[in-house]
This record gives sequence, C-alpha cells and structure tokens, in this order.
Amino acid sequence: MGGSKDAKGGRSKAKAGDDKARGSTNERIVSMAEAVVKQIEAADNPSLDVPLRTLSNVEFNTKKRIIELGSSRASRPFFDLGNAKRFMQTMLMSSELLKLQEQQKTASIRDMFYHCKHTIEGAKEETFNDQSESDPVIEDIEVSIGALREELRVFANPAGAMVGPMTIRDTGDEITLNRMGSGGWAVPSIVEPHVIQFLQCKAKFILLIEKAAIWMRFNEDRFWEKHKCMIVHGGGQPPRGVRRLCHRMVNELKLPIYVLVDNDPWGYYIYSVVKQGSINLAYESMRMAIPSARFIGMSSYDAAEFNISPSVFLRLNDKDIQRAKEIRNYPWFAARPWQREINHMLKLGVKLELEALSNKDFSFIADTYVPQKLKKKKWLD
Amino acid sequence: MGGSKDAKGGRSKAKAGDDKARGSTNERIVSMAEAVVKQIEAADNPSLDVPLRTLSNVEFNTKKRIIELGSSRASRPFFDLGNAKRFMQTMLMSSELLKLQEQQKTASIRDMFYHCKHTIEGAKEETFNDQSESDPVIEDIEVSIGALREELRVFANPAGAMVGPMTIRDTGDEITLNRMGSGGWAVPSIVEPHVIQFLQCKAKFILLIEKAAIWMRFNEDRFWEKHKCMIVHGGGQPPRGVRRLCHRMVNELKLPIYVLVDNDPWGYYIYSVVKQGSINLAYESMRMAIPSARFIGMSSYDAAEFNISPSVFLRLNDKDIQRAKEIRNYPWFAARPWQREINHMLKLGVKLELEALSNKDFSFIADTYVPQKLKKKKWLD
Repeated sequence: MGGSKDAKGGRSKAKAGDDKARGSTNERIVSMAEAVVKQIEAADNPSLDVPLRTLSNVEFNTKKRIIELGSSRASRPFFDLGNAKRFMQTMLMSSELLKLQEQQKTASIRDMFYHCKHTIEGAKEETFNDQSESDPVIEDIEVSIGALREELRVFANPAGAMVGPMTIRDTGDEITLNRMGSGGWAVPSIVEPHVIQFLQCKAKFILLIEKAAIWMRFNEDRFWEKHKCMIVHGGGQPPRGVRRLCHRMVNELKLPIYVLVDNDPWGYYIYSVVKQGSINLAYESMRMAIPSARFIGMSSYDAAEFNISPSVFLRLNDKDIQRAKEIRNYPWFAARPWQREINHMLKLGVKLELEALSNKDFSFIADTYVPQKLKKKKWLD
Repeated sequence: MGGSKDAKGGRSKAKAGDDKARGSTNERIVSMAEAVVKQIEAADNPSLDVPLRTLSNVEFNTKKRIIELGSSRASRPFFDLGNAKRFMQTMLMSSELLKLQEQQKTASIRDMFYHCKHTIEGAKEETFNDQSESDPVIEDIEVSIGALREELRVFANPAGAMVGPMTIRDTGDEITLNRMGSGGWAVPSIVEPHVIQFLQCKAKFILLIEKAAIWMRFNEDRFWEKHKCMIVHGGGQPPRGVRRLCHRMVNELKLPIYVLVDNDPWGYYIYSVVKQGSINLAYESMRMAIPSARFIGMSSYDAAEFNISPSVFLRLNDKDIQRAKEIRNYPWFAARPWQREINHMLKLGVKLELEALSNKDFSFIADTYVPQKLKKKKWLD
C-alpha cells in the first residue's frame, strides 16, 4: 500500500534498494528469463528446469521435523508438444509477475489468471482456459526461483484475526494489537517483512485457535491480557497469511506457539500442517512450517480428564475413521504419544468440538481448560 | 468484553440501567417466561405464541422496500405431543440466554447448542439432538420477543473487514479505521450500540465489496482516502455483523451505500439480501435491511461499456440460468431496469467476475471502473 504512490513507476523507477526481498525476487525472475534468452541466442531448444512437486519427490525430514521437497527436477523444453503450452504460460506469467513487482502492487491468484488470459494472436487458442491452469504455473515459478508466493506479491483469500500485547507496523500504520476491540486486526494475506514489521512485543506465547467463534470467547474474556499472549485464528484451516505470520513471530520473536483445535482427525491435520507443512506445498515448508508448534488440545483424553458429559460427544462417522487411520500412518504422527492419542480417539469412537466445553460453562475453555493444560504442560509435540 | 469484569455478577448485579437495549432484552425474556408461569398458576395448558416464519407468512413491503414477516402466529401448547419437546426446548434456551445476558457474555449459536444439550433427568431423551434443533429455537425466541440475535448476545461466525476515514469505539478501545494497515479492522459478529460506537466519521459513502481479495485491491490503492469512503467486505455473502454494521452506519451516519458484486445471479442475490433482507430471516429486516442500497456493479452491460475482452467471460451454466430466472421473478426485482439487467445477462449467456477487470490492469477496478460508475451515477436501485 505504501508503495502505491510509485505504482506507475515502471522498472527503471522501482527502488530495488529499499526492499531487499523484493529486489531479489525481481532479480530471480529476470535471471530465469535471461537463461531462456541465452538458450535461444545459442539456437538451443529453450527449456525450463522445474523442481518436481509430486508425492514421490516429497519427504519428511525427521531431523528438522518438516515436510521437504526432494531434489528431482523436470525439464520443460519449448520444442515439445507436451510442454510447449506450459512453457509459454510460464514465460507469460513470469513477465506479468515482474510487472507486479515493478508496480509494487499485490494481486490475488484469481487476478493473475484473468490478467494473463487472452486469445493468442493469430490463433483461437487461449493463453489460459481456467484458473486450474494458472495456479500450478505460479507454483512452478515460486519453486523455480525459490520465492514464496507472497514474495511474488500474489495471494489467496485472507482470513483470520489477531489481538494481544504487541505493536506492529502494517504498511506504515502503527497498530497496537491490545486495543483492537472485539473485532481484532484482520490478518492480511501478505505478511512479509516489507509489509508487516514487529515493533514491540510483550507476549510470552501465541495461542492459535482453529475457530473464529472460539477466538471471540478468548478475546471477550481478555485471555491475552491475563496470560500475556497473542491470540490468533484462521477461520478453520489457517490460511497462508496466518501461518506465515505465526512462523515469523516464532522465529523472529522466539515465541512458543500452542495450537487449539477440535478433537477430530481434521483438527489433528490442521495442527500437522501448521507444524510441518503440507504435502502439496512441501517446497515452502522452510518459510511456513513451525516445527516447535505444540498441540494443546483437544485431546481424546480430555473427556475423562475434564469430566465432560457424554451428551456432547459426537460419534465418529466413516469418513472420520478413515481419515484418522490415514493420519495415523503419516510419518510425522509416528511418535508413541501421537499413536496413543489417535488410537484412543478411535477406541472411544467419538470426537469432541471446542464448543462442547460450553456445556460446563461459557468461559470454561478460557478460564479453566487452556490455563490448566498450560500449567500442567499437557500438550503433544 | 468490557463487561467481563462483572461476569460472575448474576442477575442481582447486572446493571440494567447501563445498557438500554440489553436491559430490555432481559426484561422481554423474563416477561415471556412470566406469561407461561401465569398460565401454569391458572392451571391452563401453558402455551407459547410464536410468529410464523414460513414462506406463506412473508411479504415484500413495496413501500418500505423490505421483506417483512406477516401477522400469522402459531400456538405451541405444552400438553400436545407434537409441541411438548419444542416447548421445553424454548423454555430451556430462554433460561440459558438469560444467563448469558446476566453474565454479560456472548456465545456462538453452536455454543448455545452444546450449552443446552444434556440428557433429561430420568429419561434417555436428550434436550437437543443436534444444532438443527437449537437454531430454530433461538429464532423462535428472537422473533417472539422482537430482539435481534445479536441483542440476545448470540452470534454466528464472523467474517469481513473495514477501513476508511472513521473512528469507532469497540468495547472500550478507540480504533482509527484509516490507520489499519493492509489487514484492516476485522468486523465482529456483534456490532450493537453497546459494543460499537461511532465517534467520528469523515466518510461520504460506504462501498460494500463482495470479495476479500477485491477489497484488498481497494485498500492497497487507498481508494478510501482518495474518495473519502469506508470500504468493507464480508468475504462472500456478507455475514450478519457486516450487514448490521452497514445498516447502523447508513441510518445513524446518513451514508449512502454502494454494493459491488460479481455479475452473476449470486451477486444479484447478495445485493438483494443487503437491500431488503432475506426470506428466511424476514423478521429481522427492519434491523438489517438497507432499502437505500445501490447496486454499483458489475452489470451485464459493463462488458460492452468498458470494452472488456470476451476472453474473460464465463459461460452461464444451467444452475446460473435457473437461479437467474428465479431471481427475475422476485417482486423486489420487478422494476424495469432490473428486468432489463437480468434478461440482458441471460441473453448474453455469460457472467463476469470482479477479478475479470484485472485483465485490463490490476488497478482498473479501483482507478477507473468504480470512479466512473459513481461519477456517471450508473447504478441500479
């Protein structure tokens, strides 16, 4: 936003110096293009070398505890019937992404699709037919030049909110996150250092909450004030902005993070994506995954521990059971405490939602449940 | 949130005087209960009289231009096999809602379900089996006592964000909405006057944008600064918090509001719900609907008007066509300009997304499209 004044600046005016990350993203796009130009000048078949984003090229790094991309690469030669269109799309998208950098603007992945879509001159063929073609091309470029989508200034839909004892600067505006009322600060899609700077932080930890409605309970009860912490939610599966922001806070501010989700396979999965990244986007784990994240709940042992009425149990359905069994086989859930946790849920045959704790008292979750878990260090790693 | 200090206060401590709306919600729940007690003391069959929320009891008030509930009511006697359970549920829910008022807390509708769910003493029957039973009971109570869900301190999931030249107070915190960075202020679910107060407003109008990603474009380009307006989005179909907040701003601050949606039947529908309310929730139109809302776009005439490339047209599918025909028959779309608009979309056979304007330029929508529409007063009422 701060950059919009220079919007019409073009390449010559873009101040590469004032933003290291942006400058280098620019440079990396340009050098990818220059390599192709060289091949053409040498009368070679121009070709792009793209790291493979297939399951076979993904591995769980047990030492770093993140999901990583392997070293396999695919060659995409231009003079090849199966690759020519994708080659053209990659070049077109790269050139439009470069314009975005130069104009210092951001755009959604849907914007990029429409922005690049046109009929190829002299043909009836479209550059892109739908977004399912353009999204993978953006991912190709991300992984080829080793930049996060957000560094390319491209985003998906934002979601989520945050409050707590911390002051940030967001595109020039100083925002005091403990004075954000009931709504909170909406977490944007792009939270890279050139957009968001951390000015002052008195928080001792981060509580990442699966659901907006539960976050509202913690905000209303001013949990963040009593426990000196940041509370953040992502409206379900946390979007990239929330994950990246938490990643930065954990790494730059050295804060522990606790993840609070429903007790069901989908809750376990949300936690695992926050912690070690996802299979689909393994190439960005280094910048997104938070291996130190702790699973604070809900656990399948909570019903007994907190004497929760069976009235609020929900029976696991076939899909839940199938998903739980899949998750149990993921290498990042191989540790004994996790096998115990998942097997115990399957044995009980029930799941528990965060809202189920309201059965005891509206504020039980914020006044008793989480504080007790934190005090007794009852979490899974 | 400000009230949470009194959380344990109980009925005797709840300060009815400090909040007129809350006090009267309390009183209305109590008087509904007292009427039942009187019937019991008179040895009558206790019965609740609930306004009917069926399609047959909904009408479009062409003068006020809102969808209203008619005057039909249903009687729910306790000594009646078909009504006994619903009667019990209504009494139970009312009593728990009263506790919420007394504790000055808020809760989600899912919280309320869990909070009220238990096995009935001496029976195997549950008070509520699932949320599809408790939600209509909350609606019964809303309509019976003439209070919005938000006045009962109950909410659904929040969504949406707002920025612009305005200062508000949200649960005690003063928030300057033109200094909210790229994220913005997250619009909470409950925006009643006891939560949100408008302190200062320099905005001349409100632009309500369907999609978060498009809102980010307007925010990045500081549209709200150039055009002295509030920009707000609801992440798709605007949730109740966003609708109610806009309603309050339009009525209390006398601001015009413009609605910007995709050009498809779902966009028309979003606009119509903002403008005259929905059939389902006709009883709350008075507090939620904004009859003065204007449809600023996208219109089926825009493609020609703005010379938009056919490359970015999307063909209407069968569902779109069916929905467009349904919408065309709604009395609130009966006016000639609307018939023309819908018929023209059907004739072209295509829809247009807001992002399609990116095909011209990333900022075309904020720099050219909306400003030109506003200047030429090209909107539908």
